[in-house]
Amino acid sequence: MTEFALLNTIKNPSDVKNLEPARLEQLAAEMRRAVLQKVSAKGGHLGPNLGTIELTIALHRVFNSPKDKIVWDVSHQCYPHKLLTGRAFGFTDPARYHEISGYTAPAESEHDVFTVGHTSTSVSLACGLAKARDILGQKHNVIAVIGDGSLSGGEAFEGLDNAAELGSNFIVIVNDNEMSIAENHGGLYGVLAKLRASGGTAQPNYFESLGFEYRYVENGNDIAALTAAMQQVKDTPHPVVLHVHTLKGKGYKPAEENKEAFHWSMPFDIKTGKVLQDSSNQPQTYGEVLINHLEQKAAADSKIVAINAATPGALALRGFRERRPQQYFDVGIAEQHAVAFASAMAKGGARPVALFYGGFIQRAYDQLSQDLCLNNSPAVIVIESAGISSMDCTHLSVFDIPLMANIPNLVYLAPACEAETRQMLDWALAQNEHPVAIRLPGGAVPALQNDPAAPLELNKFVPVKAGSKIAVLGLGGFFALAEQVAGKLLEHGINATLINPRFITGLDEELLNHLVASHDTVITLEDGVVDGGFGEKIARFYGDKPVKVYNFGAKKEFTDRVPVEELYRRYELTPEQIVARVLA
Amino acid sequence: MTEFALLNTIKNPSDVKNLEPARLEQLAAEMRRAVLQKVSAKGGHLGPNLGTIELTIALHRVFNSPKDKIVWDVSHQCYPHKLLTGRAFGFTDPARYHEISGYTAPAESEHDVFTVGHTSTSVSLACGLAKARDILGQKHNVIAVIGDGSLSGGEAFEGLDNAAELGSNFIVIVNDNEMSIAENHGGLYGVLAKLRASGGTAQPNYFESLGFEYRYVENGNDIAALTAAMQQVKDTPHPVVLHVHTLKGKGYKPAEENKEAFHWSMPFDIKTGKVLQDSSNQPQTYGEVLINHLEQKAAADSKIVAINAATPGALALRGFRERRPQQYFDVGIAEQHAVAFASAMAKGGARPVALFYGGFIQRAYDQLSQDLCLNNSPAVIVIESAGISSMDCTHLSVFDIPLMANIPNLVYLAPACEAETRQMLDWALAQNEHPVAIRLPGGAVPALQNDPAAPLELNKFVPVKAGSKIAVLGLGGFFALAEQVAGKLLEHGINATLINPRFITGLDEELLNHLVASHDTVITLEDGVVDGGFGEKIARFYGDKPVKVYNFGAKKEFTDRVPVEELYRRYELTPEQIVARVLA
Repeated sequence: MTEFALLNTIKNPSDVKNLEPARLEQLAAEMRRAVLQKVSAKGGHLGPNLGTIELTIALHRVFNSPKDKIVWDVSHQCYPHKLLTGRAFGFTDPARYHEISGYTAPAESEHDVFTVGHTSTSVSLACGLAKARDILGQKHNVIAVIGDGSLSGGEAFEGLDNAAELGSNFIVIVNDNEMSIAENHGGLYGVLAKLRASGGTAQPNYFESLGFEYRYVENGNDIAALTAAMQQVKDTPHPVVLHVHTLKGKGYKPAEENKEAFHWSMPFDIKTGKVLQDSSNQPQTYGEVLINHLEQKAAADSKIVAINAATPGALALRGFRERRPQQYFDVGIAEQHAVAFASAMAKGGARPVALFYGGFIQRAYDQLSQDLCLNNSPAVIVIESAGISSMDCTHLSVFDIPLMANIPNLVYLAPACEAETRQMLDWALAQNEHPVAIRLPGGAVPALQNDPAAPLELNKFVPVKAGSKIAVLGLGGFFALAEQVAGKLLEHGINATLINPRFITGLDEELLNHLVASHDTVITLEDGVVDGGFGEKIARFYGDKPVKVYNFGAKKEFTDRVPVEELYRRYELTPEQIVARVLA
Repeated sequence: MTEFALLNTIKNPSDVKNLEPARLEQLAAEMRRAVLQKVSAKGGHLGPNLGTIELTIALHRVFNSPKDKIVWDVSHQCYPHKLLTGRAFGFTDPARYHEISGYTAPAESEHDVFTVGHTSTSVSLACGLAKARDILGQKHNVIAVIGDGSLSGGEAFEGLDNAAELGSNFIVIVNDNEMSIAENHGGLYGVLAKLRASGGTAQPNYFESLGFEYRYVENGNDIAALTAAMQQVKDTPHPVVLHVHTLKGKGYKPAEENKEAFHWSMPFDIKTGKVLQDSSNQPQTYGEVLINHLEQKAAADSKIVAINAATPGALALRGFRERRPQQYFDVGIAEQHAVAFASAMAKGGARPVALFYGGFIQRAYDQLSQDLCLNNSPAVIVIESAGISSMDCTHLSVFDIPLMANIPNLVYLAPACEAETRQMLDWALAQNEHPVAIRLPGGAVPALQNDPAAPLELNKFVPVKAGSKIAVLGLGGFFALAEQVAGKLLEHGINATLINPRFITGLDEELLNHLVASHDTVITLEDGVVDGGFGEKIARFYGDKPVKVYNFGAKKEFTDRVPVEELYRRYELTPEQIVARVLA
């Protein structure tokens, strides 16, 4: 593979240090090619990584990892770092693509300090490393690399506010590529823009206001300039911010021109920049059904607005944003604010719908509890892509039920089909009594044998098909699985009752009591962690009754890029396994 | 009650507006007396409220509540606001003290927009109100009043960052009393100090950096100055910060001189400022046991450090702070940072113990999940005052088990007695494999009939007393209740088995399986919400086994200043009720 001739000689950061300066541009070019090649083939974060190649080369020439600690925020811009720390094979060798994750992973390398995939954590984490260093009397540099809009997250501010007082070595590199995941929002990014426009001299300076020394590098893709700037802050005895202006997508024209689309991309054709998979023929996802319906409702009522935290692409909100800009609010990476803002908008008479990727709603638990539910504010929260997935360990979406369903006042709904998805949004927006959340599975809306929908009445489950002996409760996206289980049971001569619970947060005690007369077994199926989830509430309800209860769902664990089918088997979630366990 | 002659004539804000300016000082004096009188008798937030009396008078003279919306951050400085909005009786009439809560409460008055008791929420909430106003085409002022260290919380930053871009009327009043709950921490408070020292002119200015217009009032206890400043920002067409320098504890010398102690105080003697209850004769709380032990361990090992988020008083950490200042880190109101910081310190080789009041740990769920548990970092988290209480609805501590116990990798421990409290801290600090949290009840360590302690082995419950037919699992502080239940059962001829589970996060399946042979009933008792909690896991375990399970604990609801005894009865948690339900 001569296209990676130089990169293949780099086994660790000291190899980077030993290169003649004249060869660094070639290294950068090979790194860029490696990132582009893998991401175009497998999908992944493109723009952030193309933008940080020179930054990473400079980091490893100036600092001494792993003695010096580099903490990558979100860590989706760490591919170049992986290329220089013994893991280039994961980008240059298609057969080994799968060996390397898209985020920093201490299990892969001693140069990765933390497993990180949620934003805005790097400064706090680095601050803890710096304090431990000081307490243990060690001497090394601690560097947080933060960018891609992560500064807007509250944890990043808390970290900066505390790190400013460290009184010892601490370096924050702000990788400013002018973007969040989508375009940037918030007053802070106005400040960054002014700093860029003024070559770093504009006042008032946010970082200086907090107490940091501040330095600016205009060309953040110039290795020499970056190296010089880092040499100056290396071994600093106090906290410093190095603001580096990089180009997101640098070196690949389609990514430079469409920064949002190439922040993260599905596999694409390098020549044209076109995504390979034709999504127009794909079946609709739950998220698309809801958002299309939301857009129609918003067209009819200007009080209905959509709120999201920097993820319009992941949530299929770009069309809504384009066509209804006055009713669309991207608050940046700021989930806490998004929930409080939604709650208050509802109190103020608007009809907000705040949409979150499943794994990120957990960034706003206190706001769900205090700002929303304690105030019983009729805002609508939509959780997308909830359920068991093959995602990276940092992007799992299986913990939302224990998280949310145990908060008082919240009505948490799980639609089982397309019609119910629309129905639940209608219901949530038509009422004024409860905060309502809607849990959407990640995949396409299923074709079902039975129609699981019925008029919504608070905490009323739907008895979709009457049977006896065994009742199967299939929550939301797992109603389809319940149908399959019922089918299997029929092969064993059991005509099972099929129930669509719909309400995660309230038991239909009447229906559950009614089952006792003609059923000795109840099965619960949920597409999420069993611990603290829906099924356990059913187990508690039947605790003193002559009904056996079997709860099926995910195990309480962090899984990392495990195929869904394998997880289903591991959790005994195939229809065969479920029936085998219950009939045993 | 001539001491409140003027105050008693104030029924709503228009009465404040109609007063001659010359009478305002008398009003302020009466308000101060009312606050002092009630707090000295009943306990409560003293310093914050004494400091905001003039500010509140000016607010209600300049703005038109409830048309103009005033959002009080934390809202523990809202007593003066209550005095001027028809609720003075709750401060001037001892017989009616209990009618008025210590926080804003829409159920009490149309002048309270939200129920608020956690900090740093006001700017986000007010931002949502402002946006709803703009969408609905309304015209009024929206004012957030933030202070007492709340600016360090991430949600406050997220709110400011977004509010800066509103492009319409928005007023943030920063009540700067130079304090957090304890002393202030973080770079931001250095900035505030410089602004105070310079009469508001120091640069760089944090608020201006985010895009706010900025104004300063040096004497924040001068009604005329405040009124003039508010008149100037009233109806502003863009976001403004009005930085007001107030004196915490103003007008009551002991509170002015000891701001931290009088932030919140137990009942005290007005003349001397001495707390009435002599705490020296009180039995030790779980928290005191743990912190005393922690201090001893820290004295022997400089790597052991205590971290907390602005609540040294509530957590009995003042002694530790005084005697081991090098090992004590108060990060300010910044729970997210506290958890990430602790996790990273542990990764860096220190032995951090981060302590939180029970109701506040929920502000850092994502950090517990991602920064701590996903990284399997051996930091120690201590949750104090967990359990059913008579607290205000904003300060409940019953939701921590569903919140924390369903996060992978975390070991969540519940000590039942004094010795076990120390033992668990020893165990947590001696190991390097798991993040460990310890759940401490709020009250005194109990005198038990049995010794529930035994060497700690991961996920091994302690069979404290062997019996048959019924097994009682009493978690943590409810082990004492389990003993009482066992006693009652004995009166019915049942020699119950008594178990101390200790591990909230992992089932002792061997022991639970073993029980089946000689027990047909298992009772679980937990001092927290049943939904998503410990007991439901036991119910799930026995779902398919011939064992009845009864889960006892709190109902999923926000309770508000309900006496504990009443809640115990409501939740069927008296020994008599438990036995009656199980034997029914």
